[in-house]
Order: sequence, then structure tokens, then C-alpha cells
Amino acid sequence: MTVNDLTTPALLVDADALDANIADMAAALPGPRMRPHVKAHKTTELAKRQAAAGHTGFTCATVREVVGMAAAGLDDLLLANEVLDASRLGPLVESGSRITVAVDSEATLAAAVAGGVREVVIDVNVGLPRCGVAPDQAGRLADRARAAGMQIRGVMGYEGHLMLVPDLAERAKLTEECMALLLAAHGDVGGELVSGGGTGTYAINTWVNEVQAGSYALMDTAYTSAGVPFRQALTLLSTVISVTAAAGDKPGWAVADVGLKGLGMDHGNPTVPGAQVWYCADEHTVFAPEEPVAVGDRIRILPAHIDPTVAMHERMHVVRGDEVLETWPVDLRGW
Amino acid sequence: MTVNDLTTPALLVDADALDANIADMAAALPGPRMRPHVKAHKTTELAKRQAAAGHTGFTCATVREVVGMAAAGLDDLLLANEVLDASRLGPLVESGSRITVAVDSEATLAAAVAGGVREVVIDVNVGLPRCGVAPDQAGRLADRARAAGMQIRGVMGYEGHLMLVPDLAERAKLTEECMALLLAAHGDVGGELVSGGGTGTYAINTWVNEVQAGSYALMDTAYTSAGVPFRQALTLLSTVISVTAAAGDKPGWAVADVGLKGLGMDHGNPTVPGAQVWYCADEHTVFAPEEPVAVGDRIRILPAHIDPTVAMHERMHVVRGDEVLETWPVDLRGW
Repeated sequence: MTVNDLTTPALLVDADALDANIADMAAALPGPRMRPHVKAHKTTELAKRQAAAGHTGFTCATVREVVGMAAAGLDDLLLANEVLDASRLGPLVESGSRITVAVDSEATLAAAVAGGVREVVIDVNVGLPRCGVAPDQAGRLADRARAAGMQIRGVMGYEGHLMLVPDLAERAKLTEECMALLLAAHGDVGGELVSGGGTGTYAINTWVNEVQAGSYALMDTAYTSAGVPFRQALTLLSTVISVTAAAGDKPGWAVADVGLKGLGMDHGNPTVPGAQVWYCADEHTVFAPEEPVAVGDRIRILPAHIDPTVAMHERMHVVRGDEVLETWPVDLRGW
Repeated sequence: MTVNDLTTPALLVDADALDANIADMAAALPGPRMRPHVKAHKTTELAKRQAAAGHTGFTCATVREVVGMAAAGLDDLLLANEVLDASRLGPLVESGSRITVAVDSEATLAAAVAGGVREVVIDVNVGLPRCGVAPDQAGRLADRARAAGMQIRGVMGYEGHLMLVPDLAERAKLTEECMALLLAAHGDVGGELVSGGGTGTYAINTWVNEVQAGSYALMDTAYTSAGVPFRQALTLLSTVISVTAAAGDKPGWAVADVGLKGLGMDHGNPTVPGAQVWYCADEHTVFAPEEPVAVGDRIRILPAHIDPTVAMHERMHVVRGDEVLETWPVDLRGW
């Protein structure tokens, strides 16, 4: 089977780039030093490749991701996000899965207890305005969790606001300041885990003992711009469905059969190699090609943001050149 | 069942607003004068409500939408978009569905023939830089289609660039100019259909004999700003999962459990009533509320763009106040 047999639009994963990214990360942060975040790819078959590279636990952002990963036989799953309804997690624990949930408040702790979860990490705010308890309150929340019968596995803190700081020395300095807060909280909380980091800081965050990077596997143009040394592995195969020739002073354009329902748009327009993108509509990307294209041509579009793009598709095809090696369901979508 | 029983995030459709929107449009453009576009809601159960209001045909943007509509027993389906692979449509025609496909080139005509489609409309470019043959070439393409054994149902032309022109008189004047092109092409092409228009021009486009509006059913904040008199019917139910109190000069914030993987972002951030939205992350909307909110509170977020938001969700719940009346699968997603 080749890419020409695929219905478009279709996500393509470059097998060699994916393999290299997984191998390079496993070399940099082997085994449990890396807890791959599955939110970036939402694909259990890809997670199995990460497990085969030696990583022994995973990070999830939604209950659905945890449920799907457990169903696929992957274990030591950290839900690195707060939930008020953990009722789908308790049955997994009963079935023998190791499930750990982040808590940052009495209410999320109570939800974990009510849902039948037995292990938590204390989510500590290290500067990103999002979730996490204030560092000086982490120990108290851990005490409450222990009093409620929870095992405390440690702390997590995500320095997400630093992932794309352009200057690497500045990124490292700011990361150190954030991690000082996390380590102080860890002193109050206890437990074996100090979890944090991401693709933008995996090489410089030497304070955590496990890194929660996700984007490195398929990569993202924003991280490439920030100097992160992984390869772009994901493109979106699309068909040119309409071409309008230049006429006098008016430039010509072409239309590809995927638009803003198949491309994460929060980082802006996608890139069409050798062309200028004019705009995306629901099911169209309109672009001005430098060299003429014909109706029926197939092109490979670079999404501006991988994570939400993948979440819009039902499957991804692993390819080497034009050969389709495998097709994986994007089976962790939804909530 | 009430909304409190729903797993969040969850799409909510206000039953009364939906009913009013469908009834108002059916009164303005009864029966075949309106060919509802299903791309806006991707939900066959909602399309059935539109059929019950008297509309006898539908507009689709993808092959998947056509296939799903036919499977749900809905008929006279116009694929108002170009495709190079119509092979999933021929079997529907063989089974008795009436399927019409837009063509704007020899290649898309050949694909329709090869796929077993028997009826086409000629898609005419009326000014929007996207698909459509040049108006003066429409007759020639129709001749080629007839020679290939196709039935010609007429023409379509979408004045999509005019939907949000702020001044209504200007919008009407520009629409008339576009439709003059379409009517001239229709003179060359023949057939009974002159199809076009949308939610932004449904009341002023008196030149087409069927309007392809879709957004009116659930509506969109952009159309409301443009003075289109339908009601906002869709919100996104979300749970507050984390709250950080104000401290000294630093404002407090709250975090809802849906972000840019559950909200179309091409029109910008969503609206949280009574709050200022700071940003969306993958699974989070971070906002500063005017009045305090608590962890566990449920809020109703207004997406900035309905169409891509709906396409990210598996189902929508029809509600009256807090009561859940029905749950509909968003069954036309994907390609």
C-alpha cells in the first residue's frame, strides 16, 4: 500500500523520524527518567513504541487517555491534570493498573478518594498560571491526602511558560528558579517522584527525576524554532481539488482538501512547502504555489501545531517515503 | 438526567433556541428554497429536525457527510465541494440515493464519472478565492459533463467572502454583483438549480433558488455581530478544576477543563460569561472571573467558532435549562 491509496486528508508519520526521535530521547533520558506524555499523539500504538524504548510509565492529560492506555495494557499512568470525577479510574485500579492522579485542592483530593484512586502526586504551581497548589501549601495538602488514606508518590510541577523562551541560557536559569520551588515543596511532601519538564526543557531540567515530554515524538515547528533537536515526523497528506490560473495581474491559487477542521489553528496557518498559504476554511487550505500544481496532485502540509491537529483525526499512517508501513488508530481522543 | 450528570467537557444545545432557529428559517425559506448545510453541525439527528421542518435536500462538504446522511435515510444530498475520489458515492446512487456533486474542472468531472455519480452541478467562482470554474467557462464544462453522460442539475456559487460584510446594504450590493455572474453562468449551463448563499446572506440573496445556509441552526457569535437574527444555541459545559486566589497585587484565576482540543480557535479565544479569558492550553481554559468561582463549579463557555468546535466532539446534548432531553452523536465527523 502506498500513500496514493489513502483517502485524504490523512496524517502521515515518517517512520524513520519517529524512530530517531524515540531513540534519541531514550538515550538522553533512559527508562523511568522519562515519562512520555501521550496527549501529544493520543495513540496507544505509538505509546507502545515508547514503552519498547524502555520507558516504564506514561503521562496523561484526560481520563479518557488513562482509560485507553490501561485498555491497551500500558501501565503506571500519571494523570497530570486535575479532575472532579475520577469514577472511571477506580475500576482500573481494582483491575490491577497503577493509576496516579494529580491533586491541587481539597476538592480534587476528595474526587480522587471518591473515585477509588489510591495514589496521588501533589501538583505544585511553579509559575505557569494554570493548575497547582501554592508551593508553601503543598505539604499541608499531602498531609490531608495521607489522612484520607492516599499514598503520596511525590510532586509534579510544569514550567510550561518556559518551553519556548528563545535564549537557552535564560530558559535554563528560569527553569532552575521554578524547580527550586518544586524541590522545596517536595521536601514538605515526600514521595519518590519529582515530575515535570517538557520537550522544551528536557535537556536542561536536571532537578526533576522524571520528565513529562510529549511533543518530541512527532515534534512541532515551534519547538524546532526553539532549537529542540528532534525531527518533524508528522505531515498531513492532502489532495489539490481546485486550481485557478493567474490572470493578468491577478495571481493564481490552488485549494487543498483539508482546512481548519483538520488542522490545529491556535498557532496560525499551516505551511505548504513551496507555496504561500492564503487562508484556511472549514475543509480547504487556499495557497499560492511557486511552481504550478495540478488538480489531483497530492501535497504534504506541515501543521502549525501538532497536538490539536492529531486530535482531529481518526488514524495516522506510518510511512517510509510513499510506502505505508502501518496504520494506527488515534484511539485516545475525546474525554 | 440533568447536565450535572454529564462528563465534561460536553456540548449543550439549547432546545428552544434550536427549535426557534429551525422554525424561523423554514418560515423565511420554506421547503426546497433552503438546502441546509450539514457541515456546521455534522449531526444526522439535527438534520432530521431540519427535514421535519420541510426542507427536502441537504448540502454537504465532505464525502463522509454524504455517506452518513444517506445511511441516516436523508436524501437529495449535494456535495458542494470538489473531490478527486468519488468511489464511495457510486454505491449510494446504486442504492437509490440522489447524490449530486459539484465539479469545477475536467479532473473533478472525471472523478465523478469514475465514482459512479450521475448528477452534477457546475461550481462557479463568483469572487471568493477558493473553488469554482470561471463564470465564462461554466457552459463549456457543462457540455463536457453532458457528453460524459452526466445529468446537469444547475449551478452553484458561494459568495463566502461577503457573509460578514458589516454594512447590510453593501453586503446586498456585492451579493447582487456576485449573483449576476452566477446567473449568467446558469444561462450557459441550464438545469433547475441555482444554489448558493449562506447564513450571512440568506435574507438578501434573492437570485439563487436554494440557499445553502448551515450556521443558522446553532449560530455563531460572528454572525450575531453581523446582525443575523438567529439565537446562540450552543455552549460548552465545562468544570472548574483549579482556582488560584488573588494575592496582593496579583489577580486570581480559574481553570476550566476544556481547551484548544475542544474549541475551534481560528476565531480566537472562547468567551466565559462574567470573566476575562487569559488563554487556552490543550485541555484548559484559564480565565479571571469577576465573581469568585469554586473548584467543581460548572460553567457554560461560548465557543468563538461553532463549526470546528462541534467537529471536535463525539456528541451533543439537547437541553432545556439543566434538563438533558436527548443526546445526539456527532456522526458526520472525519473524512
